[in-house]
Amino acid sequence: MQSLSDLGEKAVVASLLSKIKGSAAVGPGDDAAAIDMGDRYLVATTDIISRTAHLPKGMTAHQIGWFVAAVNFSDIAAMGARPIGLLLSFCLPRDLHIAELEDVMRGAQDCAATVDSEIIGGDTKEGREMVISGTALGEVAKDRILLRKGARKGDLLAVTGTMGLAAAGYAAYMQKISAPAAIRALLEPRPRIREGLILSTSGAATSAMDVTDGLAYSVHELSRQSGIYFKIEWGNIPVDPQVHAVAERTGERVEDMVLHYGGDYELLFTLRPDMLERIQEELGDDFTIIGRAEGRENVLIKDGKVLPLEPHGYEHFR
Amino acid sequence: MQSLSDLGEKAVVASLLSKIKGSAAVGPGDDAAAIDMGDRYLVATTDIISRTAHLPKGMTAHQIGWFVAAVNFSDIAAMGARPIGLLLSFCLPRDLHIAELEDVMRGAQDCAATVDSEIIGGDTKEGREMVISGTALGEVAKDRILLRKGARKGDLLAVTGTMGLAAAGYAAYMQKISAPAAIRALLEPRPRIREGLILSTSGAATSAMDVTDGLAYSVHELSRQSGIYFKIEWGNIPVDPQVHAVAERTGERVEDMVLHYGGDYELLFTLRPDMLERIQEELGDDFTIIGRAEGRENVLIKDGKVLPLEPHGYEHFR
Repeated sequence: MQSLSDLGEKAVVASLLSKIKGSAAVGPGDDAAAIDMGDRYLVATTDIISRTAHLPKGMTAHQIGWFVAAVNFSDIAAMGARPIGLLLSFCLPRDLHIAELEDVMRGAQDCAATVDSEIIGGDTKEGREMVISGTALGEVAKDRILLRKGARKGDLLAVTGTMGLAAAGYAAYMQKISAPAAIRALLEPRPRIREGLILSTSGAATSAMDVTDGLAYSVHELSRQSGIYFKIEWGNIPVDPQVHAVAERTGERVEDMVLHYGGDYELLFTLRPDMLERIQEELGDDFTIIGRAEGRENVLIKDGKVLPLEPHGYEHFR
Repeated sequence: MQSLSDLGEKAVVASLLSKIKGSAAVGPGDDAAAIDMGDRYLVATTDIISRTAHLPKGMTAHQIGWFVAAVNFSDIAAMGARPIGLLLSFCLPRDLHIAELEDVMRGAQDCAATVDSEIIGGDTKEGREMVISGTALGEVAKDRILLRKGARKGDLLAVTGTMGLAAAGYAAYMQKISAPAAIRALLEPRPRIREGLILSTSGAATSAMDVTDGLAYSVHELSRQSGIYFKIEWGNIPVDPQVHAVAERTGERVEDMVLHYGGDYELLFTLRPDMLERIQEELGDDFTIIGRAEGRENVLIKDGKVLPLEPHGYEHFR
């Protein structure tokens, strides 16, 4: 019999999805499920973390709460939806101090407030270790929802923010290197609700997802869902100077941090070329064109060479 | 500093609720949150369980999945809402077999199917022990939602099903006593969606909640929320013969099983007296009048004596 560690997280998720034969308008497999509510879609997503398995040691309770809220709202952002609320459920060890739990709640609330949302429900139970599950809800007009599929040949490929900063933050945090922006990106990601809403309401984006599991994995995912391929210009991928600084200290490759590590929680999306100017006006500098939908495989143009874009990203259980 | 075990679950939840200053139409503190969606309420609730802390050893994977789905849908039923869908998130040990996870999913799906609903999303991560969090969503017309408050003097107090069966099931299961209906009630509770919908759409119920934490606790909760009191007739509380049979074998008091143990997942509700006949027609035998809103404290009439109704119920962390 196969255990989860034999399979790896993505195969486990794929196996589960194959068991779900739902009638939701957008089923599991996208960033969030979408349910037909007549005039709009209700969008719902859930993300669970265990303190010991997923969070760097020493993370504050406030940061843990922020993080759980942020990763859930990030999925709402990827659908181009407006947040409705967040539910949080906790398994908690019995010797946990109530003050710590309150700090987790405050962290989640502070994150929710940045996207004009709030905590609307929750549950607490006893457990061996701290586990927190979040469920974020949102709504979006039916003809404005952003999915992983929908990209067409000729579309531009773009990201919000910069790539690799969370990976650099992780290395810096573990090795006590000073890189405050990177560590903040790792521990307190900003859900891109505002950007998602601009991309959806304008009709400019043709597909979108968040970059949870790394840029390379995400590019392949959009490619697979839309049946098209992308040519990425390495030189155009926005990389924060702290990524280079941390890479220099640790000996890790910048390319790995930028392409294959997760945790950036930025949006990756495809854009109608005729809408570029409008989106530049509305989003300003906070997004970057990194490639285009063309060709017959996903490639990276680097130093004048055409390289295959390796699809691997971060996986649990392995 | 106070730890969770110093406080007990209800105080922990109360402390958390005090931190949530949400604008939801119905905030935390009821069975589910309700969010204004224009023409109706979106109802949302979350319940989390850890296999080691909350579930009897030997429970099958299918039963675990059923149970998580059932306790979540039970909260939707208590609001008089129609289910929209269920999200499930899992923390799973890496040596878990994929077949077991699939059985959990099938159990949740089978339960969802009994209330015309389905699983619409999920997440899996690694953790030390199996933890499953469910979030159930539902919808209800604005003027039809059932809350814990709203009962008036003179209303009848009623329950669906019978009381104490899950408690008897627990004792039977642990002590290997044959009591199949009781064990089934414990491990595979039936969410009372149909009954909740009848009570809400008819306008007959003035308040409702599910009996998760025991009948006595729930009566006090409805009392507190509506600012009225109940007189309960012990002789009218429906008790399955298996509760008496198990009590005889174990030496436990039937009264404790019926009043102070949790896990029955039946609906406790108040009813407009003028609607009794209509509800009897629609619900048939599957509910029982156990008391009435009257007097100045919550009391139990037993063997001709008026006894105070002790409020204690089941609590985690203690």
